Amino acid sequence: TFMRGIQTVTLIPGDGIGPEISTAVMKIFEVAKAPIQWEERNVTAIQGPGGKWMIPPDAKESMDRNKIGLKGPLKTPIAAGHPSMNLLLRKTFDLYANVRPCVSIEGYKTPYTDVNLVTIRENTEGEYSGIEHVIVDGVVQSIKLITEQASQRIAEYAFEYAKNNQRASVTAVHKANIMRMSDGLFLRKCREAAEKHKDVKFNEMYLDTVCLNMVQDPTQFDVLLMPNLYGDILSDLCAGLIGGLGVTPSGNIGANGVAIFESVHGTAPDIAGKDMANPTALLLSAVMMLRHMGLHGHGQKIETACFDVIRDKKVLTKDLGGNSKCSEFTEAICERVRDLV
Amino acid sequence: TFMRGIQTVTLIPGDGIGPEISTAVMKIFEVAKAPIQWEERNVTAIQGPGGKWMIPPDAKESMDRNKIGLKGPLKTPIAAGHPSMNLLLRKTFDLYANVRPCVSIEGYKTPYTDVNLVTIRENTEGEYSGIEHVIVDGVVQSIKLITEQASQRIAEYAFEYAKNNQRASVTAVHKANIMRMSDGLFLRKCREAAEKHKDVKFNEMYLDTVCLNMVQDPTQFDVLLMPNLYGDILSDLCAGLIGGLGVTPSGNIGANGVAIFESVHGTAPDIAGKDMANPTALLLSAVMMLRHMGLHGHGQKIETACFDVIRDKKVLTKDLGGNSKCSEFTEAICERVRDLV
Ligand SMILES: CC(C)[C@H](C(=O)O)[C@@H](O)C(=O)O
Ligand SMILES: CC(C)[C@H](C(=O)O)[C@@H](O)C(=O)O
Repeated sequence: TFMRGIQTVTLIPGDGIGPEISTAVMKIFEVAKAPIQWEERNVTAIQGPGGKWMIPPDAKESMDRNKIGLKGPLKTPIAAGHPSMNLLLRKTFDLYANVRPCVSIEGYKTPYTDVNLVTIRENTEGEYSGIEHVIVDGVVQSIKLITEQASQRIAEYAFEYAKNNQRASVTAVHKANIMRMSDGLFLRKCREAAEKHKDVKFNEMYLDTVCLNMVQDPTQFDVLLMPNLYGDILSDLCAGLIGGLGVTPSGNIGANGVAIFESVHGTAPDIAGKDMANPTALLLSAVMMLRHMGLHGHGQKIETACFDVIRDKKVLTKDLGGNSKCSEFTEAICERVRDLV
Repeated sequence: TFMRGIQTVTLIPGDGIGPEISTAVMKIFEVAKAPIQWEERNVTAIQGPGGKWMIPPDAKESMDRNKIGLKGPLKTPIAAGHPSMNLLLRKTFDLYANVRPCVSIEGYKTPYTDVNLVTIRENTEGEYSGIEHVIVDGVVQSIKLITEQASQRIAEYAFEYAKNNQRASVTAVHKANIMRMSDGLFLRKCREAAEKHKDVKFNEMYLDTVCLNMVQDPTQFDVLLMPNLYGDILSDLCAGLIGGLGVTPSGNIGANGVAIFESVHGTAPDIAGKDMANPTALLLSAVMMLRHMGLHGHGQKIETACFDVIRDKKVLTKDLGGNSKCSEFTEAICERVRDLV
């Protein structure tokens, strides 16, 4: 089943520590003989006709052709009116599902053990509509837009995800007690999807209650399904439970197999170029990518190697509590991959 | 300074376990000789002319006269179009600041120690505006309304609170990277208040980042200041860190000293009337009330007694890990109060 030939993936190394951790991932993939060929692209936004910010055409073309991308951190643009690159990418490729598995890593101590959940966030609308007005002086409104179509699509995705990943339950997270119409519509679509997928257990919970219960006992949660902003909040909260953004993978999924996997931590300019960065989040995102491409064997091997090295505690980057370099940590994972072959 | 005579407080015992825990608080107050007289009122909403739901006139009149209320849990109304009683109370008395101190309780084990922070939530607008529309079939919008006036008022309150409670810093929590105009306005008002109160340190943080950092190390936070929905979320999250809503006090503060203090847990109908409820959240809310009224000595004594009994672990209600009755736990606190006199 690994013999489908070599597939090309668009690699966006990103800024700051992005290139170093991308190099680390490429090395590990090579040793693991993952049948992936990288096509590197830069996505620094350019201004098209009319001043509209857009992804450079060669990066867009590459993604359109390859359908799959892996992306390091991008620095936040400071030019006025410049959109977040992450948001621009999600929009350009209609990546409607943001998926973040949060699984406790053995040997990396946090206040929690046995966390094993996935946040699935609607990635295109809601509070991120960007529609805002000044009504009168001193009175501003932001519009949260919820559509039947996007709600149905993400709900359907969550149940399919649960089935394909042997997960028992989906919990819709909402504030339909307050936003009766918008969250109400979202919730209705979740219920309809639940009706269609009766083999997956379905729950509904208020966002505030989820947050409270999450910090008391995260092991009670499985797949969490929610509108955009709630997903932004909960996915970061859950990342915190297992050790932060440095160890948490993320995927942005669109229609027809299109997807970009990314580490969601910052560019860490203070340590960039110093061989000190931790490539774990990007590596685990690349593992998600392999699974998305059906390359489960390669994904499993790389993930096991990464977790083994962290559990061993002998070769760790500084943020993981060790004092090894990025390249040493990478080499330790490569060796483990070789052992596993 | 305790000799200002007896003050009358409106007591809303509430539903479910509300009456039991209210009785517990009254007993402890009596033993502590708190100079408080209770005026009991029921706030089951009634429909006024035109079908509008409102607080019963005698409850409203009592609150208007006394200015200070203490409230147990209220059951969620199920009639269509019936508003949440909590929201109706906040609105009726323009209680614009929701204040929840979250302080680790010695002897009550959670994954965290030394939590000592306060969430201050704008309580009147934002995502709770209640303005929603169907744009076209399948497309719904909810309006988040942010005003200069309400933002300024809550920001000013937060800095005043920090000063009056010996707190070193205020952190504004926002998503102004996404909701540039609405959260932008809120943030601007926070910055202006910070300019006026230079003796209090001021920070700004994204809500997602706060959630992530909160579960990793809550001790880095002090006073947190935010719009309505973010406060709903963060206050519950923080309550989770110290043991949940059963031990977390809450106050809703309005202009001219008007305030309602309340336990924010549910009515627990399953154990109602069985002498099993935990009165801690209502008692600590009543302690907040005493401090709000300037009765610091009485507040301190009751709080110390409550924490002493929890630390002793000899007499605890079931939810606190013991097997004592509500009345026994109450009596243990009363005895401790007597010792402290
Ligand atoms: C960078 C920022 C715009 C983004 C968001 O708010 O969605 C980030 O927090 C995320 O979660 O990917
Ligand atoms: C009861 C509900 C309407 C309320 C809210 O959402 O504000 C509650 O969660 C709270 O925090 O007081």
